[in-house]
Amino acid sequence: MDRGNIIHDLRQRLAQSLTPTRYRHVLGVVQTAVQLAERFGAPVLDAELAAWLHDLAREWPDERLLAYARDRHLDVPAEWLEAPILLHGPVAADVARVEYGVEDAAVLDAVYYHTTGKPRMGKLEMVLFVADAVEPSRDYPGVDRIRALAETDLTAAALASLESTLRYALDRGFVIDLTTVNARNELLMRTRRES
Amino acid sequence: MDRGNIIHDLRQRLAQSLTPTRYRHVLGVVQTAVQLAERFGAPVLDAELAAWLHDLAREWPDERLLAYARDRHLDVPAEWLEAPILLHGPVAADVARVEYGVEDAAVLDAVYYHTTGKPRMGKLEMVLFVADAVEPSRDYPGVDRIRALAETDLTAAALASLESTLRYALDRGFVIDLTTVNARNELLMRTRRES
Repeated sequence: MDRGNIIHDLRQRLAQSLTPTRYRHVLGVVQTAVQLAERFGAPVLDAELAAWLHDLAREWPDERLLAYARDRHLDVPAEWLEAPILLHGPVAADVARVEYGVEDAAVLDAVYYHTTGKPRMGKLEMVLFVADAVEPSRDYPGVDRIRALAETDLTAAALASLESTLRYALDRGFVIDLTTVNARNELLMRTRRES
Repeated sequence: MDRGNIIHDLRQRLAQSLTPTRYRHVLGVVQTAVQLAERFGAPVLDAELAAWLHDLAREWPDERLLAYARDRHLDVPAEWLEAPILLHGPVAADVARVEYGVEDAAVLDAVYYHTTGKPRMGKLEMVLFVADAVEPSRDYPGVDRIRALAETDLTAAALASLESTLRYALDRGFVIDLTTVNARNELLMRTRRES
């Protein structure tokens, strides 16, 4: 399937299967990812495709995510099985490959890790990660600061978003995801080396 | 060496080698650890011994900590070598074993992990970890809340102290230690199961 047809299919699938609020979020991520890709020199069409894909399994019930991960032998961090919502990225990346024939590793990784981030994120991964955090319908404490950083510094915006996720888990008494911690530590070190 | 002689030796060693501020901190930890052990039913003399031991290498320069860890083949998390101050617990535990003949695993673990905590901390480990965080000379944002928790709930105080450490690393732009994250997640889950 060529990229145009994939997106055509996905748009219909998501418009029909997602709640209106979530569909609006996806449209916001598509728009923001394209904008960020243009701004920071990432491949624009890959960013758009990754954005259309990223939340296709976001509203699956836990049991369906777990069953899919098990049946397809998805290689995921063991602790994600304790918080199955974290599987919606890996599941979407697998669906992208199997149902839509997407083979681009950068697109698949961006989708896979869009919730937690990961160490050594590339530009496309940061574009989707930040777009997901700051698209226009997002409203949470600190979003304005991350949005402002995303105007000029993609890495700083990604770092601030990872840190916002960690603070949120501390404030709410959620388990802190180790992949997110590793992503934040690596980006912090990278920022230091580059400044 | 019996416990009385070990503490006699340590007291002289620390009074001579530590800065006055640090020595005052150690005395505060000794006093607080004994108090917490009595309050929460941990072995009081073990708590006292662990407290005397815990910071004996706290003022060693990074190079000395790294050289000791290398020469003695200490088994430490690889990332601690990037932040050598984290080695002062493992080094102190090793000195306790080699120079003072301390063999009690609970005492040695309490000393080893007193900076980061660890998953599945036992009572003695929590006593030293919390005493280190709330002894009378400690003064940092949030210490009063942890001190208040330590009046009635050792586990809640340890959890709050771990979370305070993580917030501090986020606020100050320090690397977040994975052992501390794992300790916090495990204690959070334990608290949930027990409540």
